[in-house]
Amino acid sequence: MNNTKEKPLILVSNDDGVQAGGLKTLIELVMPFGDIWVVAPEKGESGKSHAITISMPLYATKIKEQENLHIFSCSGTPVDSVKLALNKLLPRKPDFLVSGINHGSNASISVIYSGTMGAAIEACLNGVPSVGFSLLNPSPKADFSECRKVISEILGNLFETGLPQGICLNVNIPDIPDKDVKGIRVCRQTKGVWREEYEMRTDPRGKTYYWLTGDFHNFEPNAKDSDEWALSNNYVAIVPIETDFTSYEGMKFINNWTYGR
Amino acid sequence: MNNTKEKPLILVSNDDGVQAGGLKTLIELVMPFGDIWVVAPEKGESGKSHAITISMPLYATKIKEQENLHIFSCSGTPVDSVKLALNKLLPRKPDFLVSGINHGSNASISVIYSGTMGAAIEACLNGVPSVGFSLLNPSPKADFSECRKVISEILGNLFETGLPQGICLNVNIPDIPDKDVKGIRVCRQTKGVWREEYEMRTDPRGKTYYWLTGDFHNFEPNAKDSDEWALSNNYVAIVPIETDFTSYEGMKFINNWTYGR
Repeated sequence: MNNTKEKPLILVSNDDGVQAGGLKTLIELVMPFGDIWVVAPEKGESGKSHAITISMPLYATKIKEQENLHIFSCSGTPVDSVKLALNKLLPRKPDFLVSGINHGSNASISVIYSGTMGAAIEACLNGVPSVGFSLLNPSPKADFSECRKVISEILGNLFETGLPQGICLNVNIPDIPDKDVKGIRVCRQTKGVWREEYEMRTDPRGKTYYWLTGDFHNFEPNAKDSDEWALSNNYVAIVPIETDFTSYEGMKFINNWTYGR
Repeated sequence: MNNTKEKPLILVSNDDGVQAGGLKTLIELVMPFGDIWVVAPEKGESGKSHAITISMPLYATKIKEQENLHIFSCSGTPVDSVKLALNKLLPRKPDFLVSGINHGSNASISVIYSGTMGAAIEACLNGVPSVGFSLLNPSPKADFSECRKVISEILGNLFETGLPQGICLNVNIPDIPDKDVKGIRVCRQTKGVWREEYEMRTDPRGKTYYWLTGDFHNFEPNAKDSDEWALSNNYVAIVPIETDFTSYEGMKFINNWTYGR
């Protein structure tokens, strides 16, 4: 934490919406650490990734204003919420962003679909140390009481040391009692993919439509340095995420291509 | 190209929608190479990143069915379009995916907001060699005639060699006559950020709303290995993109954190 007299300004967001239980828990956990500004989507925005709203205007609604706690809803996506917070709603650049607690896993490749992580990555791009938290329970009524201790431990480190520029954290927490958590592991993103099925149905007008369903396929279930292995073995998984998506190995491959010029 | 008698099956998508001029040009360019299946959003879906549709069903509409050319619109995002193509609409797994041609740049950090690249990355995750093409002209009426030759040159390489697993390509093309293109450069993603402004207005009911505006800020305008440098110096920029977002440097930093357990 910095040594100035001013309290740290902490921005909180999520993708399950401003009414979600995971957000309320996260607000409680960061309240002792600073001046808290919450800007979160007005409704559930799961699966919105890093989407931004281009062809519609955005609205922000002040929901709560009290000492050290300011809550706004945003009509857009998680990334819209962070952009609007940074550029219009906050009195200054925040010292930290925390996102979540997501209702459900964002481990492995789910990071790319996640609005929770979209918010964290957007803050990171703007030089704000940021973390997304997810509990492996997708229920809207998930109980977040058992993950409070581990999140506080991680927040203590975050507020103490910050993060290197261009890196944010994807933290996933198994849905087990805290006493059964074996520890906290720094992991790499598991290689895997969501295999969709799409349930076909017919609407009342006779037209076919499709509901997204599917299962996660883990390409390396025995990789002990992967986040999925950690989670299935009762560890909390922290994956540092970077914002340079260049494949430097891929550059070597493409350098062998030839062109007619 | 493979040596079997069967023509390659090439999936085409984009984020500007099935009626976009860039898509039509790309279809013409791939037609000689195989059996073409187009599954693209029914309307513009720019800025949708890797978003998927969870809380609504999807519709697909067959628009054209002729020998070697099958065109569907999808009611969802670019990633929805690719998922639905892979899982329901195509007769088999495609040999390649090409996405675009986007109306406007997807260089530097724009890759993360891009639906064009969302489609390419989704195919890549499913083991399909894939490329997103973007022309640096955001107009709906952009003229794609001058970038046809360079895209054909890149497609020739793609269809000849494929791509390594887990890597797709982000190709950006300056909006200049082909004769002025100095060459094709393999680049890394430029470090930079979009700084938003948000234009504030008041709606007829007196409520404040915000329109997204903003400018790209290049943190390293003189980096000759970056895609923005290449583009501003009249080169085509190819950035190989990877799907492992782990920061391995970041893992070392976080390994120094301590916890009360």
